[in-house]
Amino acid sequence: MDNTNFLPEVLNRLIEELSKLPSIGHKSAIRLAFSILKKNKNEAMGLSDALKNLHDNINYCQKCFNLCNEEICKICKNNKKDESTICVVEDVMDLIAIENSQNFTGKYHVLHGVLSPLKGIGINEIKVMELKDRIEKDDAIKELILATNTSTEGETTALFIRELLEGCDVKITRIASGMPFGGDLDYADRHTLTRALENRSLI
Amino acid sequence: MDNTNFLPEVLNRLIEELSKLPSIGHKSAIRLAFSILKKNKNEAMGLSDALKNLHDNINYCQKCFNLCNEEICKICKNNKKDESTICVVEDVMDLIAIENSQNFTGKYHVLHGVLSPLKGIGINEIKVMELKDRIEKDDAIKELILATNTSTEGETTALFIRELLEGCDVKITRIASGMPFGGDLDYADRHTLTRALENRSLI
Repeated sequence: MDNTNFLPEVLNRLIEELSKLPSIGHKSAIRLAFSILKKNKNEAMGLSDALKNLHDNINYCQKCFNLCNEEICKICKNNKKDESTICVVEDVMDLIAIENSQNFTGKYHVLHGVLSPLKGIGINEIKVMELKDRIEKDDAIKELILATNTSTEGETTALFIRELLEGCDVKITRIASGMPFGGDLDYADRHTLTRALENRSLI
Repeated sequence: MDNTNFLPEVLNRLIEELSKLPSIGHKSAIRLAFSILKKNKNEAMGLSDALKNLHDNINYCQKCFNLCNEEICKICKNNKKDESTICVVEDVMDLIAIENSQNFTGKYHVLHGVLSPLKGIGINEIKVMELKDRIEKDDAIKELILATNTSTEGETTALFIRELLEGCDVKITRIASGMPFGGDLDYADRHTLTRALENRSLI
């Protein structure tokens, strides 16, 4: 790690703070700090203010647990969205990914995690009982698409939700698992290939 | 570019500000913003404060133009440094690199750029006349190592400085150019190989 003790204290402090961010090493932090220093003061203040105001102005949507700055988020408020289909995702990054695929017209439910006994994450740590409540109270919901990741924990959580909601009058589906679009079979791992074969369909 | 309009305004503002940083694309900015949101408020405030205080507390050293928060920088003040040898570098990132190679015991002069007529950077845009002043005023300086980059502009600037200081009672040297340490000859570009051959020495 480069020694930068001979630089001004304020600059070293910025380098240290930037190094704490994920995927930003010490060298990248130095580069970023210098590029911020080269900009004019207003631009640095813009980023500073954005950070300062962040935590005070963000809540969870009371309905779907997406992030919002009011009681109910913009997606839940959007009348053009089909409220009969709910896509259940692990986190807001996944919601952004599905929303930007531009082919899902329903609403969401964000779990904020997956069940993981090893990491001590049980049903009280994620928004899974809130999902059950929501299904029971809202008759408009007809289908639940479980879009947790296709990892072991994601699969386990999907299975748990299916069992939890047994008896509820709602169709429960799971996103398809197989070869990614444009993927080369000889580069795919054996789990992906196994799934692609198991989940084959008539064409 | 992912649409994130459905997220809270404060979060989108942070994403936008982070995207302005070099080597941080929109997707990385989203990931960084979420990771900052997951930290507690104090950590976000730490980065915010570091940015806020940056520009007001940094000057150029009046002697070598390194960054500092006083008149004279920590390196110029350091009595253990040999003040007879001055290493001339393009920017502070290069100073950090040389300082961390731990084999240079002299002091520095930071040009803050290289001559580039195409980009409109002439002798008044970089600290080159200040270097001449410094050499003329300071009799202690015996050797000037020109460590500008080995690019066309870096070479041109080195040649310019050599001519500018013709007649001054100071030895002017240029960093060696050749194969990098541990480099494979069959991966080296032809300019590097040409230099390595031209600058060969007796062993």
